[in-house]
Amino acid sequence: MSQPSYVIGHQQPDTDTIISAVAYARLKQAQGEDAAPARAGAINPETQFVLDRWEVEKPALLEDAAGERLALVDHNEHSQTVSGAREAEITDIVDHHRIGDVETSSPIFFRNEPVGSTATILTRLYDEADVEIDAQTAGLLLSGLLSDTVVLRSPTTTDTDRTVAERLADIADVDYETYGKELLQQKSKLGEKEPRE
Amino acid sequence: MSQPSYVIGHQQPDTDTIISAVAYARLKQAQGEDAAPARAGAINPETQFVLDRWEVEKPALLEDAAGERLALVDHNEHSQTVSGAREAEITDIVDHHRIGDVETSSPIFFRNEPVGSTATILTRLYDEADVEIDAQTAGLLLSGLLSDTVVLRSPTTTDTDRTVAERLADIADVDYETYGKELLQQKSKLGEKEPRE
Ligand SMILES: [Mn+2]
Ligand SMILES: [Mn+2]
Ligand SMILES: [Mn+2]
Ligand SMILES: [Mn+2]
Repeated sequence: MSQPSYVIGHQQPDTDTIISAVAYARLKQAQGEDAAPARAGAINPETQFVLDRWEVEKPALLEDAAGERLALVDHNEHSQTVSGAREAEITDIVDHHRIGDVETSSPIFFRNEPVGSTATILTRLYDEADVEIDAQTAGLLLSGLLSDTVVLRSPTTTDTDRTVAERLADIADVDYETYGKELLQQKSKLGEKEPRE
Repeated sequence: MSQPSYVIGHQQPDTDTIISAVAYARLKQAQGEDAAPARAGAINPETQFVLDRWEVEKPALLEDAAGERLALVDHNEHSQTVSGAREAEITDIVDHHRIGDVETSSPIFFRNEPVGSTATILTRLYDEADVEIDAQTAGLLLSGLLSDTVVLRSPTTTDTDRTVAERLADIADVDYETYGKELLQQKSKLGEKEPRE
């Protein structure tokens, strides 16, 4: 088996970035790949709330990615990548932003869609791979989706996001409006205290 | 409805590029989009054979893409795009090559997979959109796949390509080994005569 890969989101990670790292690493593991979630910065209070709520460990901090194999989630430009990414091998990208400046020397898996969150795309990737989404993973994915779309109220929200949110809420066994309100309250606490590290 | 878009492959078009432009434009049309296939250069003899065999018109030549909306297929770097592409709006990319230097200002649909042909990915996109592949479209897609993979013998050939080829051959009602041999014979004629224009 080849070198393990880190699944990692952007610097100054938000909830969608962190839960996408966890959920995509799990999907890769389910497909027999040796992948681990990582993060490029401190966890913010909203994300800490999500990790506590779903009882998930925060991904390990990756300080320097030089020489590593990286799957990028929730971003695709070098100004936002973990330090050392230019000296890393990028193996996959899953994102929902503009197309940035990441180039590769070989063909890779790159999935970018104009939807409200990376979590939305990851839900589809689970389905395509026929991998079951457990309640905990659904809770994480739902959190990324609701955080990025401000509980489906942002202008970036698509019908796909709405359908996926309902399905994830079902699996996670929460009411997404109620849970979303809780999440937003955490968001408004951002800046009140230093990010935990 | 917004401005119509051109679906276009790389300069010095090969069979996978031309049939991908046709097949992706058809898929977009089936989804209610106003899309037309185009090409960035002369049709080579192998591709002309394919168009004749499946009774399909060659896409119109697009000389200057400035100001147009473009869906790029079978490439994703500016050195290979139609002239004027830097002044065009790129709306989607479907490809199977290394990640190149195309950047966008907004999120777009970008699907790149390390498989043998763009045709392979397009077949999947038809399935995901639940759009039926008719015999003619299957014949085109199969031609792109067999051309790029040298009838499933190139080192870039994946299991997905093999599965997709069998399915497309079924729909197109051809034996892919026999048809592939015919295709390869056209390929060996490349260079014997000037590309038709
Ligand atoms: Mn983000
Ligand atoms: Mn996001
Ligand atoms: Mn090509
Ligand atoms: Mn190709």
